Amino acid sequence: MGETLLHQFKTIGRDLFLSGLVTSHAGNMSARIADNLIITRHGSMLGNLGNADFVETTIQSPNPADQQASFELPVHRAIYEQTAALAVIHSHPAHATALSMLCDAITPPDQEASYLLGTIPVIEANLIVVSKEAVTLVPAALQEAKVVVLRGHGCFSVGRSLEEAFHWTSVLEHSCRIAFLLRQR
Amino acid sequence: MGETLLHQFKTIGRDLFLSGLVTSHAGNMSARIADNLIITRHGSMLGNLGNADFVETTIQSPNPADQQASFELPVHRAIYEQTAALAVIHSHPAHATALSMLCDAITPPDQEASYLLGTIPVIEANLIVVSKEAVTLVPAALQEAKVVVLRGHGCFSVGRSLEEAFHWTSVLEHSCRIAFLLRQR
Amino acid sequence: MGETLLHQFKTIGRDLFLSGLVTSHAGNMSARIADNLIITRHGSMLGNLGNADFVETTIQSPNPADQQASFELPVHRAIYEQTAALAVIHSHPAHATALSMLCDAITPPDQEASYLLGTIPVIEANLIVVSKEAVTLVPAALQEAKVVVLRGHGCFSVGRSLEEAFHWTSVLEHSCRIAFLLRQR
Amino acid sequence: MGETLLHQFKTIGRDLFLSGLVTSHAGNMSARIADNLIITRHGSMLGNLGNADFVETTIQSPNPADQQASFELPVHRAIYEQTAALAVIHSHPAHATALSMLCDAITPPDQEASYLLGTIPVIEANLIVVSKEAVTLVPAALQEAKVVVLRGHGCFSVGRSLEEAFHWTSVLEHSCRIAFLLRQR
Repeated sequence: MGETLLHQFKTIGRDLFLSGLVTSHAGNMSARIADNLIITRHGSMLGNLGNADFVETTIQSPNPADQQASFELPVHRAIYEQTAALAVIHSHPAHATALSMLCDAITPPDQEASYLLGTIPVIEANLIVVSKEAVTLVPAALQEAKVVVLRGHGCFSVGRSLEEAFHWTSVLEHSCRIAFLLRQR
Repeated sequence: MGETLLHQFKTIGRDLFLSGLVTSHAGNMSARIADNLIITRHGSMLGNLGNADFVETTIQSPNPADQQASFELPVHRAIYEQTAALAVIHSHPAHATALSMLCDAITPPDQEASYLLGTIPVIEANLIVVSKEAVTLVPAALQEAKVVVLRGHGCFSVGRSLEEAFHWTSVLEHSCRIAFLLRQR
Repeated sequence: MGETLLHQFKTIGRDLFLSGLVTSHAGNMSARIADNLIITRHGSMLGNLGNADFVETTIQSPNPADQQASFELPVHRAIYEQTAALAVIHSHPAHATALSMLCDAITPPDQEASYLLGTIPVIEANLIVVSKEAVTLVPAALQEAKVVVLRGHGCFSVGRSLEEAFHWTSVLEHSCRIAFLLRQR
Repeated sequence: MGETLLHQFKTIGRDLFLSGLVTSHAGNMSARIADNLIITRHGSMLGNLGNADFVETTIQSPNPADQQASFELPVHRAIYEQTAALAVIHSHPAHATALSMLCDAITPPDQEASYLLGTIPVIEANLIVVSKEAVTLVPAALQEAKVVVLRGHGCFSVGRSLEEAFHWTSVLEHSCRIAFLLRQR
């Protein structure tokens, strides 16, 4: 992996943590390079990624290195197979997760998220043991949407770069924060 | 741009991000130097500004460099033309944005914001595609006020320096946070 | 001022900002050294204190340097004259400020703040133009209490060191955050 | 203590503070090495641990150094005696503390915390003066659970490493944050 990409993983990972989008060990990030993908190691801390916290593998074929990768590797693979994404971020933003338990799709109340994300799909899928539903429904949703929320769990964002996937995650959570302030009425 | 100004852009941009006043790619900042203005590049991350994330252009005449600038450049220009501002910050604070959807002007509940900002105007204007309303109403409001909120979008603050514009943004959001705590009753 | 004290001002100032206890330019800090006091400069940013952001003056006599000092210098002086404090921090924590508008004294709901701070006095005093009430009531309250809240404004904490005054501020705000969560019922 | 462990104490301590899990001087951390334990010094700031902020002592026998240790040393000792823990973190997360005052056990509303932590026990024990209840009930609860909340006070987490104990603390607070958003309805 080049220095630039490594730096992006580390700085965006740190900012995901600092802005409360992931807990200490939650979430995972990957980037596609041609037919390969680089994904964060299982159990790594996105807010403190070290040089050894990455696994390089292929998009289509299984690989011995896969065992060290984030358990959600099958979802990342499926996304790369079925969309034009070059980067994927899975995170656990509190407001988006909570809101996903109260509605079937998220309609951003603010101008920015409404314009950038439109209505955000919410899907029902077990991600604790990576389920067939997750591997099927997440990439399907991301053919249309930039970000999808798994009810009561967290979200997957895609982009042409890690920065772009971070952008959608950040905008989603900000919008859901506003939504909860407005629900307070 | 001098080293001091560059440093101000970077440190204030970082603190805007760390204090939750902008999402990863939201917002923009500019400073006036005589008849020129320096503005953050379109798509830059205020929390991680690099040396290449700035565009220098003129206040009055169009310039080829403008295409790289923040899309909200026309609003910044109009502010510099119609007010004494030497710096402008556009940000998306969550509590101020939410509160702007519930009232026609923001009356700070706390002593400090009440004294520093008085009643804060809320205007209705599309900023996604920079609208005639935004270019007209924002500078008009900023002839009287230090900060103006665009309903459901975010705010523009002005000052004699980036620090001062940051001050008004920071005080506004803090006051709106207190307002929501008091609304909780 | 020695290197150690300067370092304390800077790191505690930064942490006051990062934990949301002050907005960008709010608040002030001082430390007593025998009959002198060192106080942050008017308009300084506690989150980014530079070496020139301090004023050294005397506790009892006026001094030309006073004009550069925080406008709340008279309150700091009165505290040092009437209490055993060796450090004073004035900050604007959102939850404590909001709660002070809803009660006449703050009773911490959690074990830690209850033990460390007991009931926290709330006083009514204008601090925008430093008032006779502020100069009288704040030190009077701090003869008994470690921290006092000025209704709708912010708080003053005292300690044998800046670290200790930071401790009381931090515990107060944490406790008021819990209080608002419990009020949500 | 080796450099790696020292680095872990410092970075995890800083992140506990930055993510709002401890106030400036609250909480304590320890790690077991064979029959010894290293614990943070009484009065240290987890967010700014220095090289001198640690006490090394034994798990079973009293030691003169104990007087410098966190007052909650007896609870840490009892945990190491009665469980397989190799690290212990005591912190004061606001949402978990508040929620512990509203229920007798915490049932995480989100998939991740539900899977990782299950139902989280809440116990009643004075920790201000380390009580017999705390020394008895905390280790007892941690024979089954990864984290236990002391009503109205804070929590103890255990792990095979400081990182792991941080993980459970971080997940607990995130889940309680979601719980309060859902209670807002």
